[in-house]
Amino acid sequence: MQIEMCPSSGPQSAVSTLLGAHNVHAQYALVAMSLAASSLGTTRPTTLASRRANPVSARINVARVCAKSRARARTTTMAAAVPIMVNDLTGKMGRAVADAVVARGADVCYLVPVAFSGEAKDPVSVGDVTVDIKSIRDGDPGAIIKSLKSEHPGLIVVDYTLPAAVNANAALYVANDQPFVMGTTGGDREKLLKDVTDAKLPAVIAPQMGKQVVAFQAAMKLMATNFPGAFKGYTLTVTESHQSSKVDTSGTAKAIVESFNELGCGFDIADAVLVRDVPTQIAPIPTGMGVPEEHILGHAFHTYKLTSPDNTVSFEFQHNVCGRSIYAEGSVDAALFLSDKVGDGCDSEDCEAGKTLFDMIDVLKEGGMVTN
Amino acid sequence: MQIEMCPSSGPQSAVSTLLGAHNVHAQYALVAMSLAASSLGTTRPTTLASRRANPVSARINVARVCAKSRARARTTTMAAAVPIMVNDLTGKMGRAVADAVVARGADVCYLVPVAFSGEAKDPVSVGDVTVDIKSIRDGDPGAIIKSLKSEHPGLIVVDYTLPAAVNANAALYVANDQPFVMGTTGGDREKLLKDVTDAKLPAVIAPQMGKQVVAFQAAMKLMATNFPGAFKGYTLTVTESHQSSKVDTSGTAKAIVESFNELGCGFDIADAVLVRDVPTQIAPIPTGMGVPEEHILGHAFHTYKLTSPDNTVSFEFQHNVCGRSIYAEGSVDAALFLSDKVGDGCDSEDCEAGKTLFDMIDVLKEGGMVTN
Repeated sequence: MQIEMCPSSGPQSAVSTLLGAHNVHAQYALVAMSLAASSLGTTRPTTLASRRANPVSARINVARVCAKSRARARTTTMAAAVPIMVNDLTGKMGRAVADAVVARGADVCYLVPVAFSGEAKDPVSVGDVTVDIKSIRDGDPGAIIKSLKSEHPGLIVVDYTLPAAVNANAALYVANDQPFVMGTTGGDREKLLKDVTDAKLPAVIAPQMGKQVVAFQAAMKLMATNFPGAFKGYTLTVTESHQSSKVDTSGTAKAIVESFNELGCGFDIADAVLVRDVPTQIAPIPTGMGVPEEHILGHAFHTYKLTSPDNTVSFEFQHNVCGRSIYAEGSVDAALFLSDKVGDGCDSEDCEAGKTLFDMIDVLKEGGMVTN
Repeated sequence: MQIEMCPSSGPQSAVSTLLGAHNVHAQYALVAMSLAASSLGTTRPTTLASRRANPVSARINVARVCAKSRARARTTTMAAAVPIMVNDLTGKMGRAVADAVVARGADVCYLVPVAFSGEAKDPVSVGDVTVDIKSIRDGDPGAIIKSLKSEHPGLIVVDYTLPAAVNANAALYVANDQPFVMGTTGGDREKLLKDVTDAKLPAVIAPQMGKQVVAFQAAMKLMATNFPGAFKGYTLTVTESHQSSKVDTSGTAKAIVESFNELGCGFDIADAVLVRDVPTQIAPIPTGMGVPEEHILGHAFHTYKLTSPDNTVSFEFQHNVCGRSIYAEGSVDAALFLSDKVGDGCDSEDCEAGKTLFDMIDVLKEGGMVTN
């Protein structure tokens, strides 16, 4: 590993664990683990803080961003925009990420005008950027990465390729000390994680890049862990709708049902209702799922309903995703997060602890520093 | 204080804090604070464990109750049913609690056949129990409590009276070392908490007894604390419906909006839509709130909807409560919880630490021991 990892110098601050600090006066001010607590009380240049925000909120909330900034001080001067290479941007998901990179704004990040695909193809235009499409299989992809790293210091790769390419691509990134975000699912995950961990290569690897979905899923897990049995006796129903090409029950639904079962629901995942027929998908709630017609071929709708034994109380949770935008935005967030973890500017606890392998929970936990 | 508080002898176990123990292999197995961790690995008589469950789930889940019991060992023999006095059970909320006590089953708890009201009244029948209604203002209510304590060892009082009576009633309970659950809102809360804390009288005091609503509220707070800014840029809408006599915005909505704002929504609580007209309340979702007609005079419906800047992602959370059942059940849970905290049988960490004042978060946290 030639990458300059983060110095352990600078103010050390242990992970603060604020547990159970509640009383009757503030019953609901349940203070949970505060893994980002070490960032409190320090400052970060506004420009750096605000560049992380998505463009909409950045425009709207500049004042609040300034007021609420709780981020770390950097010893470096104002950070440069992060160069992001998207492989394979001729694929639908890669293209969505490339679009998100461009949309995020040139002061935040920019799209590197070279990308790998399975084979060389005609250049692709993304906004103002014309991207050369090189073959990852032919020639010397390692030399291309080296050249790009030299030309674009702090380069981050986002990988949305194919399950069959996951391990080979990771090996290429590892061999060239190239930090990457792996959005591609499948492959030999165990090997992937081991290879990257062994190399101590900074990477974000996550099967679900939809940041807000991950946050909701984690919140249900937190509720279950803290209040086991709180919904005992409640009846759960689960309905999910995806494009008809998706045969199995959603993995997200499975994970969330697991939390509801810890809360006491006793739900068999086999009882989840899988909606795959278009008329039901399109029909409005409550008879259908209310999926917009233009997203019939790509959506992930979930509804969980909890009903008390006497039917007087009900809770309903929905997370409805159309298209790829949430995953693309989450991938850009992951790339920006990763950028903060490499190079000589990193002074985070993770760097101090030598942590290099991250997931979307890590990205979310640092939200306060990244986007507030 | 004459109440025999819990011995500090017995196996000591510190509160375990399991923080941040996640990795990419188990991204969503986010291990949060585990305040009940000290109960792991010990056992509790099944009868005691299962008597805490609500009757429906107890019947259904006896096997699971046994299998999942993670509760503490007791040095005492099988616990007796908990005697519960409900003041004032001539009021609607008190009556709902009395009904819930009786419904919970005689092996779990029983209704004490004496209750206080503002003035003496004709006896009231609750199930098979005929309850004498005594004046709390005339005569010697302290002597009545003393007598009841003697006749019903381990007596727990649940108080649903009037705001104006809160402090005087608490003073009566304190003067007679009578553990109580205060479901009545209002009064001088600061004085209430101070008086009870100073006396080290075991009590559960909470403005919201709806256990599941408190759990949801805490889960949103946990999400906000752990993942600040995760929903930055999202637009929040809040719609709540209550009986028309309720003028102000729901306190629960206010607390939950606070969490959503920490998540980045930037919502002004003044923009919450308060539905108070019956036609809209009764109209089905999505045009109305879908409140059952029979609950127009007593309901608490809440819908929070989060929409991404590009409208491709939405999250919706609903908690809809009809009538008083959830609060009554939560109050009985609180009384049973409190019963475990008094007397010589208590070996919980709370007792060891000398903690005597509790809220619904405490009740929820112990859910794993109480109902699993």
